[in-house]
Amino acid sequence: MDHSTRREQLSERLAEQEIDLLFCPIPGGDAEYLTGFPRRNASFGVYEHSHMWASGAVIRPGSDPVFVVPRGFSAFNPPGIEGELVSIDYLDDSRATFADVIRRHGRPARVGVSGRTWATTTLQLLEALPGVDVVDCTEILARLRWCKSAGEIEVMERASQIADTVMAEVTGKVAAGATELDLASEVDYQLRRHGAKTPSFDTGAFAMGVNDARDASTRVSSRVLAEGDAVSFDFGGVVDGYCSDFGRTIYIGEPDPEYVKCYGLVVAAFDAGVAASVVGATAADVDRATRSVIEDAGYGRWFRHRTGHCIGLDTHERPFLSVDDETPLEAGMAFTIEPSIFWPGKVGARLEDLFVLEPGGCRSLNAYPRDLVAV
Amino acid sequence: MDHSTRREQLSERLAEQEIDLLFCPIPGGDAEYLTGFPRRNASFGVYEHSHMWASGAVIRPGSDPVFVVPRGFSAFNPPGIEGELVSIDYLDDSRATFADVIRRHGRPARVGVSGRTWATTTLQLLEALPGVDVVDCTEILARLRWCKSAGEIEVMERASQIADTVMAEVTGKVAAGATELDLASEVDYQLRRHGAKTPSFDTGAFAMGVNDARDASTRVSSRVLAEGDAVSFDFGGVVDGYCSDFGRTIYIGEPDPEYVKCYGLVVAAFDAGVAASVVGATAADVDRATRSVIEDAGYGRWFRHRTGHCIGLDTHERPFLSVDDETPLEAGMAFTIEPSIFWPGKVGARLEDLFVLEPGGCRSLNAYPRDLVAV
Repeated sequence: MDHSTRREQLSERLAEQEIDLLFCPIPGGDAEYLTGFPRRNASFGVYEHSHMWASGAVIRPGSDPVFVVPRGFSAFNPPGIEGELVSIDYLDDSRATFADVIRRHGRPARVGVSGRTWATTTLQLLEALPGVDVVDCTEILARLRWCKSAGEIEVMERASQIADTVMAEVTGKVAAGATELDLASEVDYQLRRHGAKTPSFDTGAFAMGVNDARDASTRVSSRVLAEGDAVSFDFGGVVDGYCSDFGRTIYIGEPDPEYVKCYGLVVAAFDAGVAASVVGATAADVDRATRSVIEDAGYGRWFRHRTGHCIGLDTHERPFLSVDDETPLEAGMAFTIEPSIFWPGKVGARLEDLFVLEPGGCRSLNAYPRDLVAV
Repeated sequence: MDHSTRREQLSERLAEQEIDLLFCPIPGGDAEYLTGFPRRNASFGVYEHSHMWASGAVIRPGSDPVFVVPRGFSAFNPPGIEGELVSIDYLDDSRATFADVIRRHGRPARVGVSGRTWATTTLQLLEALPGVDVVDCTEILARLRWCKSAGEIEVMERASQIADTVMAEVTGKVAAGATELDLASEVDYQLRRHGAKTPSFDTGAFAMGVNDARDASTRVSSRVLAEGDAVSFDFGGVVDGYCSDFGRTIYIGEPDPEYVKCYGLVVAAFDAGVAASVVGATAADVDRATRSVIEDAGYGRWFRHRTGHCIGLDTHERPFLSVDDETPLEAGMAFTIEPSIFWPGKVGARLEDLFVLEPGGCRSLNAYPRDLVAV
């Protein structure tokens, strides 16, 4: 990945808005995108070290990035990448170090921040630079990240191929008598065995249908699967920091006519979304095209989420394939299309592939069949 | 858990600093602590929905909490707890909704924020309330959370018992020929099989020693284990939102004299930390007592992290058992003691229990033996 070119593109955007420097938290997707400073695997309970509020990449146009990192973190996570490392030791005054780095080339008048920069850090910026204008760079960073390079598509394709391989292996284990936990654990194990660093997100393997009134919000349970369960898988793996995201539903037993109908609607909605995904259409257009198939058939109430989202270093990137997002689609965007009918106590069905938009339309990075699979 | 009493205690702290309301992001540990609004499992690539910057609990002394949550999230995650839900639909104007909720009872002069509130949100607060004083409530919230109730200790004890059980089961699988990934996956599976909702953090099962120069920063690899590997486990499970954190090192084969010496030093350092953990000692005192054992023996260079940290809803809570944290220890605090000698290419050894501080000293919530285990 060519981080210095990314920083040059960033510099142009910052110059347009007269922003003198940008702060991106470490660990974080924006810092990794711009510098290669890697994130660590996810943690349910937050990690925190002394001075961690100051941890981040400070990026000034025309200079190498400066990484401000607490010793408790840097002792085990040396960046090993281009840039200067300012390590804050336990007994250091992190406010002073932070202010020094921020003010090193004179006091900036406008400072940009990555959207998820902590409030603690934002308030320290305002304290270190009285009168400074702090600018939310969420939009600038999202736009930089949303068209993928050939190199990014290549790693996401590998991450998607791993998902396909894992789904094929796990399909053989979907059976009455297994538990969702067995299946989800097998997915997580096989993702890593095939080369993913970690799952992209919390793996889902949830059985909906006539046996149980549970909703899709409980992504894994210890319930023993039985005939009549439709098990929806939702998972991805990380390759070189990039995420895949994939979904299929496997039916146990002989599906009833309503299930077959609903699964067919999900496929038709998916196909409509694919057909609508062309350069110049908006993200909302794709959502509307997908959703209308399910709505017109009377099941709109049970398609309760957006049609999809862009994806890259993060699972959910902008634009979102959602009715409120009128961003025109561009070649190089990578996104999911993932319609569902999640009707508690009745039907659970979702189909999800990861696509890259090309000048002639969108191309799936997945190869696993989309037909209804019953085992 | 008695969330309304927690909010009353918070209200006293806010009143002392003349703070009119507090914003805590959802999902987040502060919001869960004060209201019960649960977090979802961890994700490597960030989740994001439209309007998610506004997602949070707005807490005003004397009123029920108000939850501002985007529809894409609330459709599958209804809070089901005391408070008012303001759901932001896709096409809503989230800035207006956010400003309305914040200004509902008149314009506050001072607004508190949880430390990890997004910069986007912090800047929107400043825009919605020109001239407002935004106060970082990291310290207030940490102090509220750091002494645990009997109910909190009870769930953390269960989470720790699960860790013990899993370690006992997995010890039997540590052998030449297995991979670290096999062991880590078994840990994650067994944690959930025994009732943890999710691992507390990224499970580690890493072999250090004479066979390999790797460091403890690579927490899991696919390398096949061999005689002479010392496999350090570091994991925990979540029960009712609370984390456990536990660590042991299992040696494969016959340990050499240097390894035996180092393991003994880690045990001695651990014991010194336990002895130093009394009400009124500071967190730094415990770090110094623990560290000095390893330093005095000449291995201080390879004990590269703090001695431990408090723990609860989050893996790392304040105070930190670290040289820079002079917080006096109080009865009810729950923390880890976890000295290590991580010397790449030579020795890997760590011992970690979770303790609760009682008037007479600290009590371990773990029961797994601490002696050197060689298999």
